[in-house]
Formats: sequence, structure tokens, C-alpha cells
Amino acid sequence: MTVQQSEVEAGAKQRAGGWLRIDLDALKQNYALLQQKVGREIAVGAAVKADAYGLGVARVAPALYRAGCRRFFVATVDEGLGLRPLLSADAAICVLNGPPRGSEALLLASGLTPVLNSLDQTRRWAALCRETGRKAACLLQLDSGMSRFGLSEGDLDTLCAEDLPDALDIAFVMSHLACADDATSSRNEGQRRAFETLRRKLPALPASLAASSGIFLGEEFHFSLVRPGYALYGGNPTPALPNPMHPVVTMLGGLVQDRWIAPETAVGYSARFVATQKTRIATLSVGYADGFHRRAGGLTSAVLPARPEISLPVVGRISMDCMALDVTALGDMDLPPGTGFELIGPHRPLDELASALDTIGYELLTSLGKRFHREYIESSQ
Amino acid sequence: MTVQQSEVEAGAKQRAGGWLRIDLDALKQNYALLQQKVGREIAVGAAVKADAYGLGVARVAPALYRAGCRRFFVATVDEGLGLRPLLSADAAICVLNGPPRGSEALLLASGLTPVLNSLDQTRRWAALCRETGRKAACLLQLDSGMSRFGLSEGDLDTLCAEDLPDALDIAFVMSHLACADDATSSRNEGQRRAFETLRRKLPALPASLAASSGIFLGEEFHFSLVRPGYALYGGNPTPALPNPMHPVVTMLGGLVQDRWIAPETAVGYSARFVATQKTRIATLSVGYADGFHRRAGGLTSAVLPARPEISLPVVGRISMDCMALDVTALGDMDLPPGTGFELIGPHRPLDELASALDTIGYELLTSLGKRFHREYIESSQ
Repeated sequence: MTVQQSEVEAGAKQRAGGWLRIDLDALKQNYALLQQKVGREIAVGAAVKADAYGLGVARVAPALYRAGCRRFFVATVDEGLGLRPLLSADAAICVLNGPPRGSEALLLASGLTPVLNSLDQTRRWAALCRETGRKAACLLQLDSGMSRFGLSEGDLDTLCAEDLPDALDIAFVMSHLACADDATSSRNEGQRRAFETLRRKLPALPASLAASSGIFLGEEFHFSLVRPGYALYGGNPTPALPNPMHPVVTMLGGLVQDRWIAPETAVGYSARFVATQKTRIATLSVGYADGFHRRAGGLTSAVLPARPEISLPVVGRISMDCMALDVTALGDMDLPPGTGFELIGPHRPLDELASALDTIGYELLTSLGKRFHREYIESSQ
Repeated sequence: MTVQQSEVEAGAKQRAGGWLRIDLDALKQNYALLQQKVGREIAVGAAVKADAYGLGVARVAPALYRAGCRRFFVATVDEGLGLRPLLSADAAICVLNGPPRGSEALLLASGLTPVLNSLDQTRRWAALCRETGRKAACLLQLDSGMSRFGLSEGDLDTLCAEDLPDALDIAFVMSHLACADDATSSRNEGQRRAFETLRRKLPALPASLAASSGIFLGEEFHFSLVRPGYALYGGNPTPALPNPMHPVVTMLGGLVQDRWIAPETAVGYSARFVATQKTRIATLSVGYADGFHRRAGGLTSAVLPARPEISLPVVGRISMDCMALDVTALGDMDLPPGTGFELIGPHRPLDELASALDTIGYELLTSLGKRFHREYIESSQ
């Protein structure tokens, strides 16, 4: 028997152990919503680093381009190199972690825009601009109080003393907020003022400070460009308030088998769950290797999409390639192998799962594994 | 300017933000060590599911084949389809989660061996064997007390009543231990006995019970085939004792920039770390999107490989694409951008990091992201 590749692909959805549905329409609605929020005069870029937060940059970035986005942020040069062929030349691709030593000419030749975070990065880019006689665009990052990326006040003084701003085409001066998800934190206003103070050392230039949550801190945080990521992907940028964004991601786990177990029967590794009554256990083909964190057992639940009112607890340790649900509440309902249980989606919001697992939805998204069958929904291009 | 693909590839190592070194020699030594441990009469298979625990099945599986392995375990059909062309036909590839409905003919045609976990899976495989007149090999999984995969006693009775064993070529009867990493747990012996009791319902057949940790529980757990995974990859199969395995994985994070910060300056998201003295902070280009868990800040440390005696605490929240080290202990030592700091390796064992993060090394490995530059070491093939 020989196997045709087309046959293999045709059945991929049916035989997958888990499914991710990524709603590009919702993604584009979220982009429009944020554009509306900041107003037409302010540019809305998009953070598509880490494979568009695990959702697949090859589909996400072009959809955002169609929604009007013309500035994309990746973390590394190689992410930029991967994205460049997928977008028209009028889309800027900015490399947040800056140019590693020796990569400057490659960035220039590849049409990537570096974010210059340190004196060293800035000097190297300025040297390249002088050598090639091309003032290639860059962004300049200032450290307004996160001590992570960016130039300090002293660095800026050195920069100016070396006439480096003259050598550069600085598209934006930028910084990043540490506590934007907490609108009550005084650190936000502190960082905004520090940013303003640092900017004054440079010629007047367009600026950017806010990512997803920063957008919701008020107009004074918007400057010329905002750089949302998580909010585009449906995450809540305002954790203390209802989520203004449309959900983008649905994760379903597929049933392998189910069984009734007797009281005192253990489930999963280390026998962490032991039934106290006759219990129906469903094994799903999604585990921590798929990005469903190992510690989730006992902390969250799933639902059948058709019966969202019945909560089905995740029990025992998550295994590498599977997990167990207590589906006793479904009684003897017929559950064919392959039945999909919602783990993230309209009935199980991403942010609620993250909160139950003592992390943030960002980490859940970037943990998503390779084994899911991925379906992208886009009604019109 | 145009960019040559060869040029891009040549510089990939230098411009990477993080590096994974995977020692295939150590992997093969670990295989040999386990083969020696169980003795020549017992087959040693290998769990290479989840992309060989994140290490890259395309390199790991052929290396294990060269070490003598002839039976490989993946979780899903599609993992099997990906692996099949990389191994000779004399290597069996077993699909642990079994055949999803409708995939039976594809498994058969592709030379994959299903693990049959449920009555439904067994009936479907038997039906295919009868239809095609081919008794294609399978493994039969029995549930000895983990309530995850496998047939119950009642299922076995039904199976026999339906004469299904006659229709099948059962290469091994198998089960899986829930508590093998705890040699003191009475559940291990309980599962072994339950497995023996269940097996008696079937014709005499070769059997398999032990994975990595099970191998170290004693000969009575070895049966005809053992199925290590984690131990092959250098993880400690005996958590209460020193690790008998050779380390396989080294993870280095590359320096982006470093800075001295004043007392009371905050580092990273939510200002979770605040310096109490003048502190030197190094930003590495590895974050939770690379699989370095977000909660690691404050719980672990890194080292310069050349100065392993100086512990450099990971401070503040891990970001998506970067993390911060307190490198004050290095004083004013010159640290060029691109300097590699060891996060996992000979001086920072995988199991110790996992333990500090309240998880297991298995989850750290399967979380490893795509952005690392990966280097495989194999002195001879």
C-alpha cells in the first residue's frame, strides 16, 4: 500500500489529538478597536514576536496588514528574516532585542529595522550608516525604569557627545512600561515622566511607550505609536475590568477513551487524584507538551461546547501527551472517541485559565505546542 | 543589496539569542547504560514523543537507532508519520495514544504500530486486520491502576469473548506506572501485580511495564521490553539518588546588554525585583517564549561557563523574550554582547532547575522553544 500525501493531509484534522481555532476576523476586529481607541492620528503597530504569541505569524501578520497595520515588532533578527517575505515592503519590521554583533549588515540588506537598546548597538548601527552612506531607519529605546532594554540618561549623554543621533534616522524613540496592567500603579506615571525627561536630550522625534495595557492608561501614554500584542490576540489588557477584546483562540482537546472507575481508584501520575465515588474519567490527547501546563490538574475545568453549563474538572497531574477530565456530571452520555472538549474558548476564557494557573495568558499562548491541528478563520481577505 | 541564504545560515549561530547544545554521544551512552542495566535479553525501546522531549526527533531518533534501538514510541499518528521516513523499516514506531477513528488504514499503510488502549481502538484494528487479511502488529495496553490509557479487566473479558486476540498480532502487552519515580511507593508493586493478573486473561505474550524510572525498580519490572525517555535525555530517573545518566542538554542565554542600577531601582514586569544596593543587571535574550518558565525569577541562577563558582541569580519576572540576571558578583568584568550564560548544563542540572520551579525536567524539555540555535554533538555515526 502506498500513501498519498493529499490523503494524509485530508485526514489531519480528524486524527488530531487537539485543535486550535484562530479567529483572524476577531483579530482584525481587535486591531480596529484599538485603532479606534487611540484615534486615527496615532499609528497602531503589532507585536508579532514569538510566532505571534504562539498563534502563527505566517497567518497572523498578513491578516493584521490587511487590517491596516504597517509596523510589526519581532524579538530577534531571525524572526524578522522569517517574516520579511510575508509582508509588503511598506510594512516596517522592527527587531526589539536589537542587532547582535555582526548582524548589522544583514539587517540593513534584509530591510529590517533595529531597535537600538544600548550604546554598543547604537554605535554599531551608526557606524554602518556612515560606512554605507545610508541613514537606515531605526528605533531608539530608552530605559524609563524597567532596567531591561534601553539607554540610560548617561548613555544618552554619551550618544549625544558622539553625535550619534546625527548619523541615524530615528523613526521613533520608545520605551516600555513595567506595570501597565495595573492602572493604579504610580510607576506608570513615573515611567511616563522619566521617558519625557530622557526624550528631551534628543531632537524632537515621534515617540512610543504603550503596549496593550498601556493603551488603556489614557491619551498621555499614546504618543505617536502604540504597540499592542496580547490584546490583539484576545487577551484582556485591563485585568481589573471586563475584557474589551474579542476572543481569538479556541483550544479543544480530543477524547481518546473514557472509563468508569470505582471509589479509591487513582488517576494519573503520583496518584494525585483519587476518586471518592464512582467516577467517569475521560482521557484527552492534550498534555503539557502541547502547552497545557502540568500543574493545571485540580485548578481548572473543561466543557463540552454543546453543554457549556456542565463544568468538567481537570483531575490529576497533566501528562506529557494527555490529561484526565472528571466527566461524571455527563452521566452515561455517549462520548465517541475524538469528541472535542473546550479547554480555552468562549466558555473558558484564556485569562481565567491563566489566572487559575498563577500565570498570564501570554505564557499560555507562547507555550502552545506543534501538535494541534490549527484552523484559521477569515471570512474575507 | 541582496542576501544569500548561505550567508544567513552561516551567521545564525552568532546572532542567536540562546543556544541549545544536544550531546548525542551522551544520549547514546545513556542508551548503552540502560541496555547494560536491564541485560541483553531485554529490549530497550525509546520514547521519542513530543519531538523527542523537545530535543528534535529528527536528530535524536536516528542517533538512538545507531545505538541499537529498534522500537520507538511516539504519542500521535502524525508524530509517527513524521518519524517513519527517518528510520529503516526494521525500526518499529509505536503510537501510544492509539489510532483515532478513521486513521487505521493510514497507520497500516504507513508501517506504524498502534498501541490499542480501549475496546473501541482494539475492535477497529481487529476489523482492519480481518478486512485486509493482514495481522498487522500492535501493542495492547492494560490499565494497571493509572486510569489513563488501557483496557480494564471488564474490557479484557469482552475482548476475549469477541475473539479479538485471535485477530491481532500483539507484539507486546504493556502498561504504565504512575509512581515509578518514588521507589518507596507501594503502588509500584500494586500495579505490577495488577498487570500480571490482567495479563493472565490473554495468551502468553511478551510484556512491557517500565519507562525510565521503572527500570530502576528492579528486574521484576523489566519484562521483555523497557521504554525509557527522560533518562535517555539525561534526566534523573531516580530522584532520591544521584543521577546515573550523562547530561545531554546545555542551554545558554546570550547577553543583549548590561547596566549598573542604583539602589531602589526596579527590574522587569511588576517591579518584582527592586535593587537594595548598586547592582549590575544583565539582560539575556531568552524568555518564557523560549521555554524558560515565567515564574523562574528569584528561584534559580545562571553561571558563566568559565566561572562556574560564581552564582548569578535570575531576578524579576521572566519576560516573553528576555530575562534579567544579577551579575553584580562579576564586578566590572568585561561582558561583550553575545556572551553566553549557562541556564541548564553541567553546572546547572536540568533536574535542579525543574525542582526549583516546582515541576519536572520533562516539562522544561518539552517547553523548549523554536528560537534557540541548536547544535548537535556526535563524534561518530
